[in-house]
Amino acid sequence: MGIYMAKWIWKFGEFEIYHSLMLHDRRQQYGYPEPVVWKMYAPEPVVVFQKKVTTAGGVFRIHACGHVSTTIQTGSKLWETEKYGGKTEIALKAGTVTVQIRVSNLKTFPCLFVEGVIESDESWEADDLSMNFEPVGTDSLFMDREKTPEIFPFSYAPISYRKKEKLENGVLFDYGKETFAAVRLLHLTDQKVQVNFGESQEEALDHDWSVIHFLQEPKEGELSYAPCAFRYLYVSDEGAEAEAEYEYLPLEYRGNFQCEDELINRVWHVAAYTFRLNCREFFLDGIKRDRWVWSADAYQSLFVNRYLFFDPEIEKRTLIALGGKAPFKRHINTIMDYTFFWFIGIKEYYQTYGDRKFVRQILPQMKEVMAFCEGRESDDGFMREKQGDWNFIDWAPMDKEGALCGEQILYGKALECYGDLLKAAFSKDIENESRPVDTKQEQGLELAEGYGRKARRLYELIKEKFYDKEKEVFIDSFESGRRNVTRHSNILAYLFLPCSEKQKKDIYEKVILNEAVRQITTPYFKFYENQVHCLEGNGRLLEESIRKYYGSMLKTGATTLYEEYDPAMKGAEHYAMYGNPYEKSLCHAWSASPIYLLGAFRLGVLSTDVAYETFDVRPDLGDLKWFCGKVPVPGGVVEVCANEKEIRVWTDVSGGTLWVEGKAWELVAGKETVVKIRHLSF
Amino acid sequence: MGIYMAKWIWKFGEFEIYHSLMLHDRRQQYGYPEPVVWKMYAPEPVVVFQKKVTTAGGVFRIHACGHVSTTIQTGSKLWETEKYGGKTEIALKAGTVTVQIRVSNLKTFPCLFVEGVIESDESWEADDLSMNFEPVGTDSLFMDREKTPEIFPFSYAPISYRKKEKLENGVLFDYGKETFAAVRLLHLTDQKVQVNFGESQEEALDHDWSVIHFLQEPKEGELSYAPCAFRYLYVSDEGAEAEAEYEYLPLEYRGNFQCEDELINRVWHVAAYTFRLNCREFFLDGIKRDRWVWSADAYQSLFVNRYLFFDPEIEKRTLIALGGKAPFKRHINTIMDYTFFWFIGIKEYYQTYGDRKFVRQILPQMKEVMAFCEGRESDDGFMREKQGDWNFIDWAPMDKEGALCGEQILYGKALECYGDLLKAAFSKDIENESRPVDTKQEQGLELAEGYGRKARRLYELIKEKFYDKEKEVFIDSFESGRRNVTRHSNILAYLFLPCSEKQKKDIYEKVILNEAVRQITTPYFKFYENQVHCLEGNGRLLEESIRKYYGSMLKTGATTLYEEYDPAMKGAEHYAMYGNPYEKSLCHAWSASPIYLLGAFRLGVLSTDVAYETFDVRPDLGDLKWFCGKVPVPGGVVEVCANEKEIRVWTDVSGGTLWVEGKAWELVAGKETVVKIRHLSF
Repeated sequence: MGIYMAKWIWKFGEFEIYHSLMLHDRRQQYGYPEPVVWKMYAPEPVVVFQKKVTTAGGVFRIHACGHVSTTIQTGSKLWETEKYGGKTEIALKAGTVTVQIRVSNLKTFPCLFVEGVIESDESWEADDLSMNFEPVGTDSLFMDREKTPEIFPFSYAPISYRKKEKLENGVLFDYGKETFAAVRLLHLTDQKVQVNFGESQEEALDHDWSVIHFLQEPKEGELSYAPCAFRYLYVSDEGAEAEAEYEYLPLEYRGNFQCEDELINRVWHVAAYTFRLNCREFFLDGIKRDRWVWSADAYQSLFVNRYLFFDPEIEKRTLIALGGKAPFKRHINTIMDYTFFWFIGIKEYYQTYGDRKFVRQILPQMKEVMAFCEGRESDDGFMREKQGDWNFIDWAPMDKEGALCGEQILYGKALECYGDLLKAAFSKDIENESRPVDTKQEQGLELAEGYGRKARRLYELIKEKFYDKEKEVFIDSFESGRRNVTRHSNILAYLFLPCSEKQKKDIYEKVILNEAVRQITTPYFKFYENQVHCLEGNGRLLEESIRKYYGSMLKTGATTLYEEYDPAMKGAEHYAMYGNPYEKSLCHAWSASPIYLLGAFRLGVLSTDVAYETFDVRPDLGDLKWFCGKVPVPGGVVEVCANEKEIRVWTDVSGGTLWVEGKAWELVAGKETVVKIRHLSF
Repeated sequence: MGIYMAKWIWKFGEFEIYHSLMLHDRRQQYGYPEPVVWKMYAPEPVVVFQKKVTTAGGVFRIHACGHVSTTIQTGSKLWETEKYGGKTEIALKAGTVTVQIRVSNLKTFPCLFVEGVIESDESWEADDLSMNFEPVGTDSLFMDREKTPEIFPFSYAPISYRKKEKLENGVLFDYGKETFAAVRLLHLTDQKVQVNFGESQEEALDHDWSVIHFLQEPKEGELSYAPCAFRYLYVSDEGAEAEAEYEYLPLEYRGNFQCEDELINRVWHVAAYTFRLNCREFFLDGIKRDRWVWSADAYQSLFVNRYLFFDPEIEKRTLIALGGKAPFKRHINTIMDYTFFWFIGIKEYYQTYGDRKFVRQILPQMKEVMAFCEGRESDDGFMREKQGDWNFIDWAPMDKEGALCGEQILYGKALECYGDLLKAAFSKDIENESRPVDTKQEQGLELAEGYGRKARRLYELIKEKFYDKEKEVFIDSFESGRRNVTRHSNILAYLFLPCSEKQKKDIYEKVILNEAVRQITTPYFKFYENQVHCLEGNGRLLEESIRKYYGSMLKTGATTLYEEYDPAMKGAEHYAMYGNPYEKSLCHAWSASPIYLLGAFRLGVLSTDVAYETFDVRPDLGDLKWFCGKVPVPGGVVEVCANEKEIRVWTDVSGGTLWVEGKAWELVAGKETVVKIRHLSF
């Protein structure tokens, strides 16, 4: 036998659809499970796997999640078929045959593992009996036949509480920092036990308003809980003992950042830990609440992941889960802009990893979602709110009358990205793809061109309608007559619309630096605003913002980064949100943006082509005296150290260009490049 | 409290989708479960139920299959909403509010029961979070909050074997006739026990080829089996004892037939029992194998049901299950004609019960399926085989080159029926419908007209292309040049195409009565051929066919009617089919057609309007001396007795007309009408 190569396979997308369904059904709120509020999709119950194989004969063995039935087509006619029913060990004669294995699974989802003379891998195809065979889905996590894809393979480590304290007729356990763990309670003697999980002590002690709490009868003195988020744990039984097991995705920290400012270093590390906790089956919004997958939150996580883990798998899983299945009848998370961010995110994924195979696999769902979007266009091509749409953009006042500027910009960008992705999907490869470019290639490339043109037409129309010539910036609505200016419309225009340099400068000066324009209040949109600051070179604001916002958050005792933070608040006020005392998430992915901003705009490593084929390193000290850090790139890493006197860059990959004081140095793989600084400021 | 009216509700269609999925996954074949070979659909995992209610205040209680979360919208603004999370007892204030209950269920399907100041019933709406609220599904089977729709409510009765015999190192139990029962084996002492179910003794004794068999280790001397079909049961343990519980749908025999020929009477009774065994969650094809739902088999069951049980519920369940869900990407059961029979069957259902509400509820899926069909039309409007289509019509040689005559006829009929159903759905009601006719009524009626026109155009084209002017009958293919004539194309033309009287006469004389044209061999298509015989008044053939075919089948010891039967075969040859010794179904629904044929063409009760608003009674002695029987109709029954001297008809409903010797007698509800015969033959 050759190298052990068999892996679990499934119909592309079904693994993510299944685990997304499980995940979204796990939310607990105020003593009850809380069903998700948007459309969920069920896995296909019956799937056929097939492969045409040529062998010298031999035995293969079938392992499956579900019932199987195998047929082997030995000739070109349908009746030249041998039936093996549910047998799981089958002898193949020498020659070329098509093996079809039908799997039904009504409890989880159909998946298959074949080993022996033939083995299951990416070269197989799957179909839900709709005559639509497509390359299967796989994941490097599932190479072991004993570990089926039905169970998500998290890692586990026992953790201990730091402090145990008797109070309020029970015990309070403090685990020292926010964690995500399965808890087992022992030595319980009370008949009914109240158990409250808390991100804060206040939350853990609140029987009604701790978001995750239970009132249960112990069995043989014990109670067990599925993994959830907490730092504190209150148990209303004075004799209670607790065991906990940290559940996590074993991702390797590949990015890194260090500088002379210990506060910024701490923010980086807390952000990294915050982000790690939120990286699970998918990119989550927050680890306590909702534990759901939000498209625009996930979009930002793509950027953070790139400078921390550089893990394409979680990106793919997230994008597949968000895209759902046909029939697609409502915006992702019910939010219009979130559907558009999904397209932009897939383009970001492709741009980062150059993974054309994935683009091809997710293309049918992109078509489905795009058809939905195009079916909702107004006659003028703009997207206006229809029944069931949530026109979100941000938690902020905006003039949402008629077509909203930000939505049109994102729709234009989605169209452009979809065109680019079609082009990537239908272009010829040098790689050996499992799915050959089909005869429809030309049609596909024409379609790609068409979406490019459509995006450009929409961009022109946006500029015509939303650009206010007097104010020289973008307004929210051209239909209301109010000519309202917000940071949101202008930040999105700056980042996603092909603006002229003058338009960008105007936006920056007349809106972003204009204190009279209402400030951004959410870390979510701060992400975009900080991007603009950095792109405008007004870099010192980054450190200032990190110190002021995150630094003061850490001073309140935060061990992970909050969903939102107002320095003016005191004590438990920090924990309230959405009208409830502890509903705020104290460990929220979108707050991990310093990882990305420091990597992209201080270390300055930015891809300039698909998959870092070429990339720039543009170190910028900003407000710092020195820094040293690592940015992961495909196949390697870029290490960048800078102080006021010199820049040192080392990388093990080629394609990089170091830019210092407007001059370029070609980076050589395996060699350090050192550039001395002439001017104090570069 | 008023009358107890609460019932279980679910998103329309999901009950059938779920039970169809369960049913289709239950097939056992040669020791293994055998997954279904066509596209199955999964239930929606999360559904929102809603109702706008006006109450004087009070408490309601929620019972659900799954997790629930309730919100109550108290004003017109979205934020005027009260959240109750998973609470199951909620106090409602006086006034008008909209109650929304979200239910998630990943294991079965979301369903809901509300009782108290508000109650769940047909007036509620459901949505799968795709902003598409539609009236819920209900079933009179589910009025009890303790009995959820997750379990199909069959009835049970203990049954005993007639004979127990030690042989072949084990025991053979004979239950005297085919049955469908759960079996429990007791007093087992062997470590491993072989258990074979058999419709015949030969099958039960065959360890390899009995279709349903098991080799298992008893637990504490016992083994239990989910209900399945058998007459014989072999257990390879000499000490074995067996208990069995008959599982059945408690339908009332409402039709009836008796005549002087005891053989025909026996056939009628065996057909009734055969049909009863196949009436379960849905109309099954056969009770042993496949136990799947085939569209054209189900179509014929509609007719038998009408003259035996007159149960609209099983018809609705079957039609919903067959229609599947969006996206519809492959023909029902993979067979092109079966998709067309689905439309024709829905029209048949509407015509019989006048149930416009159901037509409206199934309309979205009809639209989906019709869009699929229309997407597969050739440029000339004909339906030609495409990848994945099975062009079936019957197990018989046919010239299938290019467009096949039978498929075009059935497609035309499907278009006509769809047009008729659109008209029914969008017409104004006098009834109080839960779903008001919406503003799109005019568009709907226009669409209906359009499909009517399209059907008529296709009919003309079929006559132009498939009618052979020389042969004066229809040919299978106009593209092959072979001008092949089969009974199939002509029977379908006779029954479904608007043929002239001359064309019908030609078909009857030149094809049906022409022994040179290859005979029909399947009971499936005999159903249609016998219809033609009866419509042509060549009625004596019916008795002849029943005596010859079914009579000799009974003489082989059949206790139910076989899938197929060849009088020339002997012994166990009768049990073989599809290349395996016992794969033939010995209890097959499509063989129950005598129930329909005797009811429709002897008792002669035929609806002439929607829901028997008017109906004809055209008794025909055929080859018999006398008969007496009952035909169920909406709200009552028609009893018809005839002999060579007089006809007696009694009915408790109005609208009937008795036809004797070309003359009409109006039937009066509650009164017997007696007509004396003048001529011996009428």
